Amino acid sequence: MTEVKRLDVGPRMSQAAIHGNTVYTAGQVALGAPGAPVAEQTKDILDRLDALLEQAGSSKDKLLTATIWLADMSTFNEMNAVWDAWVTPGATPCRACVESKLAAPDFTVEIQVIAAL
Amino acid sequence: MTEVKRLDVGPRMSQAAIHGNTVYTAGQVALGAPGAPVAEQTKDILDRLDALLEQAGSSKDKLLTATIWLADMSTFNEMNAVWDAWVTPGATPCRACVESKLAAPDFTVEIQVIAAL
Amino acid sequence: MTEVKRLDVGPRMSQAAIHGNTVYTAGQVALGAPGAPVAEQTKDILDRLDALLEQAGSSKDKLLTATIWLADMSTFNEMNAVWDAWVTPGATPCRACVESKLAAPDFTVEIQVIAAL
Repeated sequence: MTEVKRLDVGPRMSQAAIHGNTVYTAGQVALGAPGAPVAEQTKDILDRLDALLEQAGSSKDKLLTATIWLADMSTFNEMNAVWDAWVTPGATPCRACVESKLAAPDFTVEIQVIAAL
Repeated sequence: MTEVKRLDVGPRMSQAAIHGNTVYTAGQVALGAPGAPVAEQTKDILDRLDALLEQAGSSKDKLLTATIWLADMSTFNEMNAVWDAWVTPGATPCRACVESKLAAPDFTVEIQVIAAL
Repeated sequence: MTEVKRLDVGPRMSQAAIHGNTVYTAGQVALGAPGAPVAEQTKDILDRLDALLEQAGSSKDKLLTATIWLADMSTFNEMNAVWDAWVTPGATPCRACVESKLAAPDFTVEIQVIAAL
């Protein structure tokens, strides 16, 4: 039996769960930039992921996979410009990016990752 | 080389796959409540997840992450009321919830999880 | 601290990431059959997954879970005919299949997997 360590534990979800040497994060939305353009929302989300990964003892260099949901696929290039500048060259994660409506109309990007410790 | 143990193995998919101390489940839909309101479908799905996790030697206390697809995001609160009552306080998983049309119109919620053993 | 081995590392994403005895792949689209019917795109994608898994030291016998996005859920049966013929009887993975618009209109199926080594 193994232990699970959780970060930022809320009544509905935790923001991260650490199991063995793998960390899972909740889907992050731009709580700091609701309603902002996709580039700004993406930046806010990636800042949140940096902080969560650091708190978990990981970092963007150790990302395994990312799922990106865009509320509107026409913002694909705008999101990617911020993403491409953020990822670590030579250590980019696996990724899937698809279009899905998100929980609230103010949020037009959501990113969830799994990383190594 | 590691072994994979599978539960409820069908010709198209298995309902769970156990690898090391991690269990993956298939996306669960409300086979016991097709066409029912989202709250009932969610309850049916969470019952299925409880049973699958128990069979795998895990439980909802050990959930790592959940992906929730809603066919219509306007049912977000209805699903959450059932979800919030189900999760274990202090041991809530990571989560992402997005809108996607599902395989059949009778199913309006689908939930897939990864848990620790 | 654990090491991550990556395959086909690009500036935006890697096509696979190996961590411990688990391999994650990027969402695969039919780069060899853009605009083709869903059956052909699915075949192209599953060929890509076979190659990626082999390169990672895994195979379709060791699949843990698959996420399948269809741009149009009316192609569910067409995709499944190819999928069902591909999976290994007795070793089928967990699976979720939902509808989402993909990054480019030429791609109408995307499949991402996690497998054991």
